[in-house]
Amino acid sequence: MKVVIAIDSFKGSITSAEGSEAIADGIRRVYPDAEIVSLPVADGGEGTVDALVAACGGRIVSLPITGPLGQPVTASYGLLGDGRTAVLEVAAACGLPLVPPEARNPLRTTTFGVGELIASAVRHGVRDFIIGLGGSATNDAGTGMLQALGYRFLDSAGQEVAHGGAALSGIRTLDAAGAMPELKDCRFRIACDVDNPLYGPEGAAYVFGPQKGASPKDVRLLDQGLQQWASVASAVTGLELAAVPGAGAAGGLGAAFVGFLGGTLQSGIGLALELIGLERHLEGAHLVLTGEGRLDGQTSRGKVPYGVAQLARQQGIPVIALAGSVDLAAEALNDHGITAYFPIISGPMALEQAMDPERTKSRLRTTAEQLLRLLQAVQR
Amino acid sequence: MKVVIAIDSFKGSITSAEGSEAIADGIRRVYPDAEIVSLPVADGGEGTVDALVAACGGRIVSLPITGPLGQPVTASYGLLGDGRTAVLEVAAACGLPLVPPEARNPLRTTTFGVGELIASAVRHGVRDFIIGLGGSATNDAGTGMLQALGYRFLDSAGQEVAHGGAALSGIRTLDAAGAMPELKDCRFRIACDVDNPLYGPEGAAYVFGPQKGASPKDVRLLDQGLQQWASVASAVTGLELAAVPGAGAAGGLGAAFVGFLGGTLQSGIGLALELIGLERHLEGAHLVLTGEGRLDGQTSRGKVPYGVAQLARQQGIPVIALAGSVDLAAEALNDHGITAYFPIISGPMALEQAMDPERTKSRLRTTAEQLLRLLQAVQR
Repeated sequence: MKVVIAIDSFKGSITSAEGSEAIADGIRRVYPDAEIVSLPVADGGEGTVDALVAACGGRIVSLPITGPLGQPVTASYGLLGDGRTAVLEVAAACGLPLVPPEARNPLRTTTFGVGELIASAVRHGVRDFIIGLGGSATNDAGTGMLQALGYRFLDSAGQEVAHGGAALSGIRTLDAAGAMPELKDCRFRIACDVDNPLYGPEGAAYVFGPQKGASPKDVRLLDQGLQQWASVASAVTGLELAAVPGAGAAGGLGAAFVGFLGGTLQSGIGLALELIGLERHLEGAHLVLTGEGRLDGQTSRGKVPYGVAQLARQQGIPVIALAGSVDLAAEALNDHGITAYFPIISGPMALEQAMDPERTKSRLRTTAEQLLRLLQAVQR
Repeated sequence: MKVVIAIDSFKGSITSAEGSEAIADGIRRVYPDAEIVSLPVADGGEGTVDALVAACGGRIVSLPITGPLGQPVTASYGLLGDGRTAVLEVAAACGLPLVPPEARNPLRTTTFGVGELIASAVRHGVRDFIIGLGGSATNDAGTGMLQALGYRFLDSAGQEVAHGGAALSGIRTLDAAGAMPELKDCRFRIACDVDNPLYGPEGAAYVFGPQKGASPKDVRLLDQGLQQWASVASAVTGLELAAVPGAGAAGGLGAAFVGFLGGTLQSGIGLALELIGLERHLEGAHLVLTGEGRLDGQTSRGKVPYGVAQLARQQGIPVIALAGSVDLAAEALNDHGITAYFPIISGPMALEQAMDPERTKSRLRTTAEQLLRLLQAVQR
């Protein structure tokens, strides 16, 4: 009997590791000799960098970089224990919190600092990048980032264009001669939970521009700029970048990663599960237990139980999801590879009572035990 | 795939039949061709007579009888559709509600009316009796009942003794010559949920006498009377009645049924499950679903899930118990044949919300569906 446990935290109650241990206890009450593989997992949300750094014995590197408005900013990334892998969030270098609301203007903001972080890491020996998109204040198609890495974007007079989304429409050609040579040896794995194309009605400018401070007129300008950027980039790379799902993430940074740095975009949960090696651990497993605090319609769109179920389904392994609560929309989970899902709450009670950590652990233990008892009985 | 459903009502929310249907729906979503046997069941509590009469197309028979204090009382029993079976509660003829609190006195109260009900039923052709003990105001060891059926209890002067517990100690012999001859052809199945012996510290007088109005001095008198009754009865019947578990039920009526009417005492739930033929329906079943509103320590002491589990265990069939809520003491259920138990509540909420009938049905359906999905997956 091999069982894999891969649950999210039950937010506000217990950590993923605590929940895994409780479930493992419940399993061992029925199968004392079970091979239990516990893989605490985060869903790529806040705290992911810190969690990965802690799990991998790494450290946080901080350095002065160029902020989204060109101002000096101190930003950090995680250098994992292997010395070859960095984890960074683009928002650390070009995020909305770095720009006061009244100053938000994607015509001007740049991703230059993202490139500086990457360049620093490359000089530290990093060749493997795990990058979270999302939360950027920019719409420059990653031009700033590429500039910091040595690429030159030139206008019709052969001059390098200025920072910001407004300059994109002036780009006529680009010069990759000065790009850091080490980039060719780097792998960029990008966590990206949107699938917007680069431009057009579903593109970066129209969908995300307004929340970054763009007026309707700005949005049209930015969209034209992204189109121009795409035509130049495609001519150089030979890739059709505009329609890649996620090209429009983080103001077009998605396209830049894919087009110039050989990056792969995948869901945050997909990447998180890849990093913990779930697929490999599933081999030979008879059962998978996953879960999170609340199973709902959101769960079907890229959270831990969904990601776990996708991989387990490929190997034909039954997946049980446990949750503090379950709403009606959770029925969709069955269509997404969750064999069966169960709320663990024992009876009518208030939310605060249900979230008591000892109670949550006890109920996870008991529910796992009862399910395994049942499976044992029917398999006799 | 054969599944037997035998659940109690979820009191205050849905009936046993409604719950059975919801569970059956859930099973059919996974196994559309499953053979599903639904056996709505009551736990022998209030309403059992009415429920059985309704289920068996019978009628209620009412007649004037002698009440516990000798006063005239109208009492009823159920005559089932087969015309041969009667269901009665001894409390209808000698129950505490028939005696005003200030008049309660087991030295005087009699079970004579119980015998009159039985005699009436025998004259109607009844040969099969289902009788609920419990709630009696008496401590006469069933002497009154047996007198109404033709037995004579005589004192040292050869005179018939008076009604009530006080007279027991005067009994020296008994005369069965006038007993109704049809009684030899009658079967008495008695639902009895206590296992007290006839007399002694755990006997009828000491344990139940005070709540029937006996003073400490009365209790000692009654206990001596029960001892005397037992010595006479044992001499006549050749049976050691005093120590039979349940002999002390209903002020010693248990002993009278066993000793003189060939009655068998069994738990209320055991009898209820016998009446619905559960044991027979379990043959060939792959799974049993039972349940009730609240699974707790009480459940382990003779309610529906416990009774169902006892029978299913004998045939090695896994039993799942579903409940609106489950308390910590429910763990004991696993030792009593419940393979696994699950609360059906979906998340934190108030009791009234949880007891909404539509919600209860929906959650029973979904929980059954999820469990069957899991069983299907692991059996592939």
